[in-house]
Amino acid sequence: MGQKVMVSAITREEVREAILDATDHLLARYGYRKMTVDDIAQEAGIGKGTIYLHFASKEEVTLSHVDRIVERLKERLWAIARSDADVAIRLRLMLVARVLFRFDSVQQYTQSLNDLLAALRPKLLARRARYFEDEARVFAEVLNEGARRKVFNVDDALSTAFALIHATNSLLPYSLSTNELGERDEIKEKTEHIADLILTGLLRKQNAPAARRRR
Amino acid sequence: MGQKVMVSAITREEVREAILDATDHLLARYGYRKMTVDDIAQEAGIGKGTIYLHFASKEEVTLSHVDRIVERLKERLWAIARSDADVAIRLRLMLVARVLFRFDSVQQYTQSLNDLLAALRPKLLARRARYFEDEARVFAEVLNEGARRKVFNVDDALSTAFALIHATNSLLPYSLSTNELGERDEIKEKTEHIADLILTGLLRKQNAPAARRRR
Repeated sequence: MGQKVMVSAITREEVREAILDATDHLLARYGYRKMTVDDIAQEAGIGKGTIYLHFASKEEVTLSHVDRIVERLKERLWAIARSDADVAIRLRLMLVARVLFRFDSVQQYTQSLNDLLAALRPKLLARRARYFEDEARVFAEVLNEGARRKVFNVDDALSTAFALIHATNSLLPYSLSTNELGERDEIKEKTEHIADLILTGLLRKQNAPAARRRR
Repeated sequence: MGQKVMVSAITREEVREAILDATDHLLARYGYRKMTVDDIAQEAGIGKGTIYLHFASKEEVTLSHVDRIVERLKERLWAIARSDADVAIRLRLMLVARVLFRFDSVQQYTQSLNDLLAALRPKLLARRARYFEDEARVFAEVLNEGARRKVFNVDDALSTAFALIHATNSLLPYSLSTNELGERDEIKEKTEHIADLILTGLLRKQNAPAARRRR
């Protein structure tokens, strides 16, 4: 396990990242259907063969690119979950983050998102269940913390976490097409309103006024 | 304005209903793409020309069929809204109804719903905004009543009504494909959980325990 192995492992990861970065640019520029593995290789400045060392197909690259968006979102959610903010504020920020992080990640794609969703929908569907479970685990941790601190009324944290996820899922780019997404501010406001309604319900009475926006 | 005019108006409406009933059966049996106007005429037991007296195209018939589902849902929502039940119970029933009424209306289609959504998505999109506005008005009426009776904490009833709609939209067949819809019981439970979370938030403190399922 010498240093050489470490260096080569890092490089492999860097190449992978470069391929996914190139895919991101090309999806925004051409859309999924028009994009080829040759395009990705050229954009990344590497040989086509190198791409096939990392990914079996254009489909695989694109799915990994979506995975990366959700991985980054999860890092973001954990960062909020472990921050010093009030537990209700953290939950609200996390709900807004799970909607807007995705919005921001695909906003530049405009037309081509429909392409991608149409072509990969069954495979994305299988992944989505996993994405939501991972997200639910982060939400459950904060809900449990709130329950321990007697700030939230929560009986089953994981089940409540899934309800939070379902309550905001209609605002994700996956459910909405690009036309339907609307303006970022609008999406943000809708998410915040749902978050506030639910937070008011979760908060124990003595804490309730703190998280209420309109009172 | 003799009786004859009345009779002919009723008959015209009946023919229209028969065409939409036939469309419903055919969508379940063949799916949107395979269904033709000839099929609809045969299923309804009328001439093809009669269909064109009512609808310009297969697309128009199908969109009117979707309109009819939502019209019936709205009747259902108004019936619940105007019932004698506790105002919080009414709101909960309405949330579950808006999800399950749609689920039940398309459940028999299985595969063919994807067809229909793919073919008509842009046109359905425009209609959906109107559907949601109409639904929001029913919810707002109950929210306002709850506020007047000092059962709910609601500042802007229409805006809260839209939040209720967005919070349950991810469970509608339009956002989910048939594969994604899952079991009816599962959908029902998810909707009820969201409804309970939000209701707990809306209820004024002294009323809060009444609507809480798990406490």
